[in-house]
Amino acid sequence: MSGPRFTLARAQAFDRDDPLKDSRDHFHLPTGLAYFDGHSLGLLPRETVQRARQVVEQEWGEQLIGGWNKAGWIDAPQRVGAKIARLIGAKPHEVLVADSTSVNLFKLIIAASRLSSRGTLLTEADNFHTDRYIASGAAELAGLRLQTVERADLERSIGPDTSILALTHVHYGTAERYNMAAVTERARQAGALAVWDLCHSAGAVPLRLNSDGVELAVGCGYKYLNGGPGAPAFLYVAEHLQERLVSPLRGWMGHAAPFDFAFDYVPATGIDRFLAGTPPILSLAALECGIDSFDGVLMEAVWRKSVALFDIFVRLMDERCSDLVCVSPIDPSNRGSHISFRHPHAFEICQALIEGRVIGDFRAPDIIRFGLTPLYLRYEDVFIAVERCAALVDNRGWDHPRFRARQKVT
Amino acid sequence: MSGPRFTLARAQAFDRDDPLKDSRDHFHLPTGLAYFDGHSLGLLPRETVQRARQVVEQEWGEQLIGGWNKAGWIDAPQRVGAKIARLIGAKPHEVLVADSTSVNLFKLIIAASRLSSRGTLLTEADNFHTDRYIASGAAELAGLRLQTVERADLERSIGPDTSILALTHVHYGTAERYNMAAVTERARQAGALAVWDLCHSAGAVPLRLNSDGVELAVGCGYKYLNGGPGAPAFLYVAEHLQERLVSPLRGWMGHAAPFDFAFDYVPATGIDRFLAGTPPILSLAALECGIDSFDGVLMEAVWRKSVALFDIFVRLMDERCSDLVCVSPIDPSNRGSHISFRHPHAFEICQALIEGRVIGDFRAPDIIRFGLTPLYLRYEDVFIAVERCAALVDNRGWDHPRFRARQKVT
Repeated sequence: MSGPRFTLARAQAFDRDDPLKDSRDHFHLPTGLAYFDGHSLGLLPRETVQRARQVVEQEWGEQLIGGWNKAGWIDAPQRVGAKIARLIGAKPHEVLVADSTSVNLFKLIIAASRLSSRGTLLTEADNFHTDRYIASGAAELAGLRLQTVERADLERSIGPDTSILALTHVHYGTAERYNMAAVTERARQAGALAVWDLCHSAGAVPLRLNSDGVELAVGCGYKYLNGGPGAPAFLYVAEHLQERLVSPLRGWMGHAAPFDFAFDYVPATGIDRFLAGTPPILSLAALECGIDSFDGVLMEAVWRKSVALFDIFVRLMDERCSDLVCVSPIDPSNRGSHISFRHPHAFEICQALIEGRVIGDFRAPDIIRFGLTPLYLRYEDVFIAVERCAALVDNRGWDHPRFRARQKVT
Repeated sequence: MSGPRFTLARAQAFDRDDPLKDSRDHFHLPTGLAYFDGHSLGLLPRETVQRARQVVEQEWGEQLIGGWNKAGWIDAPQRVGAKIARLIGAKPHEVLVADSTSVNLFKLIIAASRLSSRGTLLTEADNFHTDRYIASGAAELAGLRLQTVERADLERSIGPDTSILALTHVHYGTAERYNMAAVTERARQAGALAVWDLCHSAGAVPLRLNSDGVELAVGCGYKYLNGGPGAPAFLYVAEHLQERLVSPLRGWMGHAAPFDFAFDYVPATGIDRFLAGTPPILSLAALECGIDSFDGVLMEAVWRKSVALFDIFVRLMDERCSDLVCVSPIDPSNRGSHISFRHPHAFEICQALIEGRVIGDFRAPDIIRFGLTPLYLRYEDVFIAVERCAALVDNRGWDHPRFRARQKVT
């Protein structure tokens, strides 16, 4: 981007011309907040307020046990899964909402390990830590060797003993994005199955799981999908694999006939077999609303705005506050929907920004992340964030003991 | 029980004298409903209405990511676990809320299997089906043989190769209750570890896990604990075993330092290590309210009323409608908090009762269950239920095609 200096007035003009500007009204925005943490916990959709009251007060309160049928609770994992499918380029019956990302990843790794006699589960050394921890536990149980390699060595490490490749599509720290189609194809050619974690991708970047040949994936509901704190997660299993995989967590909800009380476990047909226990309906109802906030919106439009927000962010930061060094890929095809900057005092800067109602987050040791959520973020918010960073760095305004106290969760 | 005929007036007098009568006001009761399905989905506590609004509208809506610390979400699994501990006779740090009953059972079976070189997982042939299914999947992964035996043969089947004994304390159908202390002791003497499913026990019968020597247990939140549809489940690990067990589901929330992003998985100290992924906060907040509905109530008082409700139920049914044959143990020390009757037309009778706003449930092939939930059930409700059953049987009032259609969930 070049041209005249990017002023507040220009940011506001961008907001007026933003084709997605109306979707901001669908969210509850605390007063005066510039919220760059939607990659960690999405905003509350206004519709969710009513829906949460309805599911508690009318459905549970009045219909009680009848709610499982009358209010459609029993079909919610599949119904909500089908809505996610639209956002990730999958068929409606290939996605299911269940459990947490961690538990779903465990299910898919163990199930996939049964398809091969190979002995290695390959992942990236800098994969998100819960993914590595889950992989280590699953590998141990499945009798696999866990091989962790640097990102740069990843593709060439896929070898004749690789059974499963477990990767996160968009890196939680830097926002680096794998070429999912190419890596999946590379794995397939080598005879391995790829399992993708889409936590930082779903609802953020355009995904075409089917046409990219993706076979297995998991993802979370509380980030870009706006499902609320700890919203249930989802999993994707390509149609052609569904009948070949059996979940190690053989709960009744994944049985072919859960209410027949059959003696033997017979997995349900299709994606349903990946359900385990009874799903948390209140959280699931909120997730459904969160996903509905994408109604009438094309992921391509969401991504176009993410790219524009990023470009302005990086340009402004470079002009106004070049001490914060962007570590996210400049080429949009190589990144997700957040922008990360490195600074020796990243933690304190992040705390000072939060005190000033600009909410980003810190990732150890020296990264500030700003989530770019086009459904509700304004160009003006980007302008404000950079101005605040510049003021803090210019005045060492972050240099105060109260900004050094560590929180449990950032 | 003997004496004069138990009339409606007498039932109402019992209600007036009921020491727990005030707790009924803490629940939302749909008009004209006699609700005997609290063993499947507990009523909505009035307090939950406000709490659900608060967690959605104030905490998520306003505090956003800050809610993890400011609103205490991050500590909810332990905080709510400690509240359950009081109801089941455990220490506060021995109980954790997480995942579903199915997933928790899987965790404990796999973790416990590592403590022994024995080769058999023993369970009851008529254990609740999700327990058997989960046990079969866990056994396969842990390299154990799954041995299922009839209830009558259970104790004598605990042998020198028994690694784990997985049982449900109160039978979902008949309400038969194991002597948990005796069976646990029998297992321990034989060198096996018992894992108990408390789904039909927690909040229903007095439990003393510590003094009964129980070491491992799981249970659900949506039945007697009034946590709402699909409420998160809990698990119990006796203090002395906590450091010896490692969950196979090594999610980040169970790590010693989840936000340090350490390379290696180091399980947290104590019960925290059994967390896996991010917990569903909306459902967890509702569960906390459900458990709080026991505040100021002693489980002994709850149980006393359960016994009284049962005695009147069985006596009235015998007097008025002896075609329905009670299959639950008459001795209260051998049963849980529901009463089950057998009838060849149990399904249709159950449907006809539901149409008349008396809500029990059906369990194949021929059982009608009535949950006895002393916090909100009246003696008058029992009177009404029996009168309805009697009228239906006297007039074959259930003999109508509309009562034969099967529901997905009953």
